[in-house]
This record gives sequence, C-alpha cells and structure tokens, in this order.
Amino acid sequence: MSGVPGLSKSRLEALCDGIFTIAMTLLVLEVAIPAREAVHGEAELLSGLLAIWPKLLSYVASFLLLASLWFAHHFEFSFLASTDRRHLWINVGFMLCVSFVPVSTALLGDFYTFRTGVAVYAGNMALAGTMLLWNWLYATGRARLTVEGFPAAVRRGVAVRLGIYAALFVLSAVLSFLSVTAGFVLCVTVPVVYIVLQVIPHPIDEQRQGPATV
Amino acid sequence: MSGVPGLSKSRLEALCDGIFTIAMTLLVLEVAIPAREAVHGEAELLSGLLAIWPKLLSYVASFLLLASLWFAHHFEFSFLASTDRRHLWINVGFMLCVSFVPVSTALLGDFYTFRTGVAVYAGNMALAGTMLLWNWLYATGRARLTVEGFPAAVRRGVAVRLGIYAALFVLSAVLSFLSVTAGFVLCVTVPVVYIVLQVIPHPIDEQRQGPATV
Amino acid sequence: MSGVPGLSKSRLEALCDGIFTIAMTLLVLEVAIPAREAVHGEAELLSGLLAIWPKLLSYVASFLLLASLWFAHHFEFSFLASTDRRHLWINVGFMLCVSFVPVSTALLGDFYTFRTGVAVYAGNMALAGTMLLWNWLYATGRARLTVEGFPAAVRRGVAVRLGIYAALFVLSAVLSFLSVTAGFVLCVTVPVVYIVLQVIPHPIDEQRQGPATV
Amino acid sequence: MSGVPGLSKSRLEALCDGIFTIAMTLLVLEVAIPAREAVHGEAELLSGLLAIWPKLLSYVASFLLLASLWFAHHFEFSFLASTDRRHLWINVGFMLCVSFVPVSTALLGDFYTFRTGVAVYAGNMALAGTMLLWNWLYATGRARLTVEGFPAAVRRGVAVRLGIYAALFVLSAVLSFLSVTAGFVLCVTVPVVYIVLQVIPHPIDEQRQGPATV
Repeated sequence: MSGVPGLSKSRLEALCDGIFTIAMTLLVLEVAIPAREAVHGEAELLSGLLAIWPKLLSYVASFLLLASLWFAHHFEFSFLASTDRRHLWINVGFMLCVSFVPVSTALLGDFYTFRTGVAVYAGNMALAGTMLLWNWLYATGRARLTVEGFPAAVRRGVAVRLGIYAALFVLSAVLSFLSVTAGFVLCVTVPVVYIVLQVIPHPIDEQRQGPATV
Repeated sequence: MSGVPGLSKSRLEALCDGIFTIAMTLLVLEVAIPAREAVHGEAELLSGLLAIWPKLLSYVASFLLLASLWFAHHFEFSFLASTDRRHLWINVGFMLCVSFVPVSTALLGDFYTFRTGVAVYAGNMALAGTMLLWNWLYATGRARLTVEGFPAAVRRGVAVRLGIYAALFVLSAVLSFLSVTAGFVLCVTVPVVYIVLQVIPHPIDEQRQGPATV
Repeated sequence: MSGVPGLSKSRLEALCDGIFTIAMTLLVLEVAIPAREAVHGEAELLSGLLAIWPKLLSYVASFLLLASLWFAHHFEFSFLASTDRRHLWINVGFMLCVSFVPVSTALLGDFYTFRTGVAVYAGNMALAGTMLLWNWLYATGRARLTVEGFPAAVRRGVAVRLGIYAALFVLSAVLSFLSVTAGFVLCVTVPVVYIVLQVIPHPIDEQRQGPATV
Repeated sequence: MSGVPGLSKSRLEALCDGIFTIAMTLLVLEVAIPAREAVHGEAELLSGLLAIWPKLLSYVASFLLLASLWFAHHFEFSFLASTDRRHLWINVGFMLCVSFVPVSTALLGDFYTFRTGVAVYAGNMALAGTMLLWNWLYATGRARLTVEGFPAAVRRGVAVRLGIYAALFVLSAVLSFLSVTAGFVLCVTVPVVYIVLQVIPHPIDEQRQGPATV
C-alpha cells in the first residue's frame, strides 16, 4: 500500500494523543460523590466516600492502563516513518477501544461483583491490546512503514510484550467465570505490575553512560 | 479575499483537530450503562447491556464517520497553502456540525425507530458533508488558496466524492419517511462501506514502489 | 516586567487554544434531547425537539462567539513576541471567562425569558471582551511585549473593536432590564453581525494581489 | 537510568498540557444551575444563583490552582533536557492527581462545611504538590535529566517553593479539624496569594532591560 496524501504519521499521532488525553480525563466523571441531600453529618460523608472505593480503584487502574497504552503506542510510532490507509483505519479501531474505556470503567466500578462487569472490562482492554498488536505487526510487516535500519529483533520483542498484555486480560475475563473476585484483582493488578517492571533498572540500561535525549 | 493576519492554515487545522478529537471522545458519554439499583443478577446485567445495542451501534457509526470526516478534512487541507476570512468561517460552520454529532448520535440511539430521530441524524451528517464540500469548492475556486501546482483534476474528484457522501445521508433522511429501518441501516452502513473502499488496494497505489512519507 | 523563564508565548497560546476548543465542544452537552420514556409518537418527538429551540440558539450563538474570541485572541498574539508574568495571569483570567461560557449558555437556554438569565450571559461575554482588551492594552503598552516594527495604529484599532464588542454585551445586560426579549435578541445577534462584517470584502484587502500565507 | 526510546520530553509535556487543559475546562461541569421547573420568578432565579456561591468559589480557586500547577510544571520542564521511565511514571502520578481535581472540587463545593470535604480537597492539592516536588528532585538529582549548565541554586529554590505550596494544603487539612471554615478559607486563599506574589515586580526582574522571549 502507498502512503496517504494529506496524512502524515505525526498528524495521526496527534489525533491518537488527543483521544488518549481526553479519555484519561473523562474517566473521573464516572466517580460520583455522595449527593448533598443524603448526607447529614461527617460520619455519613466519610462512609459515603469509602463506599465508592470500587469506583476509585477502577478509575486509577484505567488511568494507569491508558497511560501504559499511550506509552506503548508512542514506542511503536518511534520506529515508523510513514502511515498508509490500512494503518490509519487499524489505528482508528484502536482509538475506538480507547474511547470506550470510560464506559467499561464505569461498568467495572458499579458491577465489580458481577462476572459480566469484569468480563466486559477485561474484554475492552484485551481488544485494545490486540488492535495495538495488529497495528505493530501490520506496520512492521508487509507494509514496511518502518524507519531505515529498523532492527528485526525489535519486531518480535514488542509483539511478545503486547501479546502478553492482551493475554493477561483474556485470562482475567476467563478467570471471572471461575471467580469474579480473582478476575477483578487481576484486572487492577496488571497496570501496577507493568509500571513496576518499567521503573526497575533494566540490565541493558545500566550499560549506557547517561540519559539519552529521545 | 486576502489572507488573515494572525491566522495561519496550521492554527485553523489545529482548532479543527481539537474539536474532532473531543467530539469523538464525548460520543461515549451518551452510552449509559444500566443503573446499579435496577440490576439484581448476572442475567439482568447481561440483558441490560444487550438492550443498549442501538446506543452502541450509533456510537461506533458516529466515531467512524467523524474519523472519515477528519481524514477528508486533512486531505483537503493538504492541498491548501493559506486561509482567508471566509474560509475561516466556512470551517467554523463545519465545526459547528461536527460538534453537534454527540447530540444527534444520542438522538439516534434513543429514537432509531422514529423517523425524526433518523432524519435529524442523517441531516446532521449531510450538512457536515455539504459544509466540507463548500469549504473545498471555495478554497480551490475563486479564492485560490491552493498550493502551487495544484492538479485541476483533484478539484473535481474530491468534490464528487464529498457530493456522494452528502447525497447518501440526504437519501437516508428521505428513506426514513418510507421505512425508518431502511434509513437507519443506510446511516450506519455508510462508514463501513467508506472504510472498506479505503483499505482495498487502489490501482493507482499499486504502481508506486513503496510507502511514501506524507 | 521581564519574560518568564520556562514559559513561551507559544505554550500560553496552546493552553488558550485547548481551553477554547474544549469549551466550544462542551457547549453541546447542555442541549438535552427529550427523554425516551416521555415520547410515544413522532409528533411528540418533533414537538419535543422544537421546544428546545432556545437551547439550540444559545448553543449556536455561544459557539460562534467563542470562535470570534478565539480569532481575536490569535490576532492579538500575532503582534506579540513574548509574554510575562502579569500577561500570563491576565490570560488565565480571560480563560476563566471562556471556560464559564458553557454554564452561562445553559442558563441562557433555560432562562431566556428571565432578566437574570440574559444579564448573566451578557455579563460573562462582556467580561471576556474586557479581559481581552486589558490583555491587549497591557501587552502593547508599558510592558512592550510586541514584535519589532509594531504599527502604533493597530493598537488603537484593535482596542476600539474590542471595546465595541464588550460595550454591546454591557448594552444587552442593561437592555434586559427594560425588555428581556430585546436583551436576548441583541446577545444572539452580535455573533452574526460580527461574522457578516468579517466576510464582506474589506477595501484594504482589495488592494492586495492574492491570498497571503500567514 | 537511560532515556526512553520513543518518548521525548516534548511528548510527555504535551500529554500533561492536554490533561491540565481538559481538567481545567471540566471543572465548570460541576457548577449546576437551578432547575427550570423549580424557578417561578426573577427573585427565585437570583437567589438560586447566589446559593451556588460555594460551587463558584471552588471552581475559580481550582481553575487558578491548576493554572499555577501548569505554570510550575512548565517551569520545571524548561530546565530539563530529557526524560526517563521513572520520570515518566512520576509524571503520570502527578497527572492522576490533576485529573482528580474536578471530583475534589465538586466535593468542596457541596461539602465546604464538612471537615471531610475540605480535608479531601486539601489532600488532593497537597499530593499534587508533593508529586511535582518529587518530579523535580528526581529529575534534577541522581537522574541528571537537566540541561547543560543547570544552575544548582535553582534546584533548592524551586524545591522550597513547591514544599511551601504542599505544606499550605497540609496545613489546610489539619486546620479543618480545628475549624472547617478556617481550612476552607486557607484553601481558596492560596491561589490568590500565589498570583499576587507572581505579578508584583521581582527585584531581580527590575535589573533586566526589557522583556525576554522565552
């Protein structure tokens, strides 16, 4: 496929960045505080706020997951030199999954004790990961949208990591049929594990002399 | 007309990009999940979620239509070198149509069995297409805002495609007076057909050697 | 006053652009369509939609007014070379007025027959215009934030136009105490007049040879 | 730690800018105007609007506080040359605090006479300040992400100011246990004091000849 006249890689990236940013900020609209009329004292307000912990936990987990996907999307694009029509529409499909996260997060917050609530949330995240994987395999495969000197080893490495990400959410969905709690715990644990793995020093990083400007 | 001091083509594009991105992400706010109090079991939650299929379908169709319009808008702007005051206000009118899509989408999701619901949605989309067509005819016509060496054949080609796009939604609106279902089906089919036409290889693309960076 | 380390004119412009874009798109959330349960036939839906005309008119007027302010803000910034701390906070005050427009628009849509509704809306717009005027007078005055070769005549010309804009809304607010309808009509007429004045050919433009890339 | 392939300082800044802008504009959604049905005359509308003063005050205070944090964040980034993985995730944590401000603002507006309302708001702001302080100490410390020739005195100066900012909100939270009113007043006073300190001439500024373009 050819490049797309009028559409640069950077414009597509800007559209995706915008949708990520707005979806991340809209998440908080799902956190409903107690109604003023229903609260008559400090104790009631405090217990009302503690009662929305599943909403708060879902919000934090989704915020961190969207930040992870944003980072992974940037990582992918840093190896690309151009885009084409199919690549554009795979990205739009990915964005559709991202823009749906506020709804599935609201569902998880309200229905974290229901198999359906956990499965829809995990399914949304698994689909987002799969679209990002497809995006990567397409761009680095036959379509050859990559920068010159693209290291072949990176293709496999990124694909494996995205595959694991999607598989963990498929596992959460399946798990929720055995134990809803286990599925829910796995869903909100994935971003934490991801971030911990990100911030512990990588052996390969240690060999470098200092921070690189990228 | 002259150029506009203080307003560049790129700033106008940035404003339009922003409104597209936000409208696309706000669409999801119209997808209301079942209320927690009304659900007492898995079966109820599942049937509650299945019952909002018209909302989900409208959301997906509008997301894809806005992505198509965003792409068409970029395509137009890639042939322009400048903007002027009239061009600015035609674009603002186009943006007004785009920013209204979350409302007409909510209307379609709630009232897809009502002629009025389908006709307002189709009318919104037809008007957006018409504004984009006016935008194009103005910029490539007397106002001569185009880049140097603008191929005259492109003017007609883009105009025909935008005309077909707008006509399909006028048809949907008319159709809804005969059969509401037919009008609704046409509305949600247009984006799918558009994308399929986009991603099948174009004969002209096949002649090129590789992906072009645009 | 000195420049602000870490804050460029372009970053401040980007913040303002973002708030404009989001405020313009959030306006539509105030347009509430009839509730599904309350509608039992085509006639009811149609009359329900016709009944929200004040909401629709307020939305269109505010969208066009925000687009005008956005354009005026860009026009101002095109003559500036830098920013400083006071200029930053005057801009933040202007942004506060802009971000409040969705609320005053909702108020106008619901209470267009109430003096208070019209006066608050007109007051919001008058204050926004005044802040933009202050912004201009400060930047082009003692603070000397202007580009080299800034034409002195422009200072006065822009100030007069912004003064007229603010005065028209002060007039709307005052008028609403005599006749609420007159105040309302003036409010929604201003953007239309502004745009008509923008798109009719300017004598000075006619002298130029072609569109300038700005 | 090394730099992050695929993630530049400027992209991270753009993500943060986006979340700031959207959070600032979403604040206004918490300002609920009186319902149309409940108002039967001018006097009722006026008193209904005056009754939401705590909502309006919270909105203005939060808008100004977010603008201050945005400015402080830019100030920090102006001294940085690169980012790394840990820096990215500290920033995401900061953004999580920023994105939560619309909720804590709604809480303050509804429950400004409740210790819990004031303490949660102050806690949100104190945490945001602490994350920004951590961000700064990390980037200018062992990670050495700073620009060449970074003046050592700046590190301490900025850290002290961010520490005072966070401490003032810790104080507000503590104060609210003695007097809720005092805690509330301190919360909404901080942004005003901050801005006044910003706009009075700094002795160091007076020595410069004119505005610097930064």
